[in-house]
Amino acid sequence: MAKVIDGKSVAAALRLRVAAAAAGFSARVGRPPGLDVVLVGDDPASQVYVRNKGRACEEAGMRSTIHRLPVDVTQEALLSLLDGLMVDERVDGVLVQLPLPKHLDEQAVTDRVVPEKDVDGFHTLNLGKLTQEDETGFVACTPAGIMELLQRSGVSLAGKHVVVLGRSLIVGKPAALLAMQRKAWANATVTVCHSQTANLPALTRQADVLIAAIGKAEFVTADMVKPGAVVIDVGVNRVLDPSKKSGYRLAGDVHFATVSPLCEKITPVPGGVGPMTVAMLMRNTVKARRQNAAPGA
Amino acid sequence: MAKVIDGKSVAAALRLRVAAAAAGFSARVGRPPGLDVVLVGDDPASQVYVRNKGRACEEAGMRSTIHRLPVDVTQEALLSLLDGLMVDERVDGVLVQLPLPKHLDEQAVTDRVVPEKDVDGFHTLNLGKLTQEDETGFVACTPAGIMELLQRSGVSLAGKHVVVLGRSLIVGKPAALLAMQRKAWANATVTVCHSQTANLPALTRQADVLIAAIGKAEFVTADMVKPGAVVIDVGVNRVLDPSKKSGYRLAGDVHFATVSPLCEKITPVPGGVGPMTVAMLMRNTVKARRQNAAPGA
Repeated sequence: MAKVIDGKSVAAALRLRVAAAAAGFSARVGRPPGLDVVLVGDDPASQVYVRNKGRACEEAGMRSTIHRLPVDVTQEALLSLLDGLMVDERVDGVLVQLPLPKHLDEQAVTDRVVPEKDVDGFHTLNLGKLTQEDETGFVACTPAGIMELLQRSGVSLAGKHVVVLGRSLIVGKPAALLAMQRKAWANATVTVCHSQTANLPALTRQADVLIAAIGKAEFVTADMVKPGAVVIDVGVNRVLDPSKKSGYRLAGDVHFATVSPLCEKITPVPGGVGPMTVAMLMRNTVKARRQNAAPGA
Repeated sequence: MAKVIDGKSVAAALRLRVAAAAAGFSARVGRPPGLDVVLVGDDPASQVYVRNKGRACEEAGMRSTIHRLPVDVTQEALLSLLDGLMVDERVDGVLVQLPLPKHLDEQAVTDRVVPEKDVDGFHTLNLGKLTQEDETGFVACTPAGIMELLQRSGVSLAGKHVVVLGRSLIVGKPAALLAMQRKAWANATVTVCHSQTANLPALTRQADVLIAAIGKAEFVTADMVKPGAVVIDVGVNRVLDPSKKSGYRLAGDVHFATVSPLCEKITPVPGGVGPMTVAMLMRNTVKARRQNAAPGA
């Protein structure tokens, strides 16, 4: 098996399975899974993300609707749109693209998406279900994608020491909770490190599996990695690079050039965890469709 | 400061503060905080726990009501009692004493207690709020008591390595989530070990603060503890002891006799974490009273 984990090909395989499931719904009850994405304003990166998600859904035979709202939309208007989507039985999953403009209350907005349609896995109840290992909930797409990527790369976590670098609600904490679950492929011993950790290299060097989600370009260097470790790089950082037309290049949280020779396996940036995030969003939408009580609505 | 952390005296101080808060409510709005405890069947240990909780509340000037149900109560009758308590504005906190008889669905029963009255902190939404560091939620009494005990013993976790032995929903996971919070007294690097962990002694020996919650009598021995560590023993195990009238003695998860000489601080069993659990239940009930929208109902 290749040392560099090819997130694109794992994600492509997952998307094929999603497409098969979507086709099943279309054939059986005449309605494929449907995802509604809410985009506020015209941030270029958000526009790209939203377009990619929509396109991926359509390629898999799912319905996808993008709701574009002006940058100065009021909180009331945004909540009112969400409330409409919540009672619409044809809507299986709803995602509000973050970040939102400063005048909007991000927590109040994401909490307005009911847990049953929260395919992003950000709702408080879904975080609680993750902690409880209750599989009816939705898990945030990036940490879920990491676990899927590890499994499909033949890496079992059982009895391993997983070190998570970062304690965010979107990656670090859910990744830690997933890795320690009482499941045959999980059951890891888990350490969560972060910006306040003392002797960080001594801890990360213990990792059989190192998950870097600290948001600092090329932060993890060779001296921080045990030879033979599996390294998952969640970072997507822009680094100035005058040689590029755009003026920058994308870099992960891991210094790939020096770390990759040491590893048993490593994910690249881009092409590692990133593609998995979109694939897991699609899988969550299929799951929402399956759990949605309104069959052919 | 004494090496052996005196949980009884820390809990007593906390109960005095709870009593002052309760008196404030009684004086201002004529209604003290009220806790309703539901006890099914006649398990002797559960009877003792419930009686202790009720007595502690009354000593602090709080209302406490114990609802005793026969061991063969139906799920419907139990849920119906809970539903009545949920809509009763005079009821601030509700606790269902666990374990329940086998014919009852424990998850369905504990989920029937609304998050706002869930002073045990077992509801899915309260676990999610803990993960989100949302302080409007309720944290399970034992892990909350551990953190309180550490703070009141002058132990800061910031930058320390906390090793939690056990990944239960009631102690291990919430203790880990609390220790890693972005708070001045928390901010710890956290490792969660459990029954599937390889090289356990090598990991526990790294702990600046070791929290043992694995439920095995005297499991943690001297070779597993770093000299100078702080050791918190959550275990309450019955060990056969013919020299005792009852035929058994209580033992923690830590082999106190050999570990305590090594430690900077250690909690005894009994008299360590145990008394804190009841005190935190009372504090959670005061918090529920404060958040209850019905002032003098």
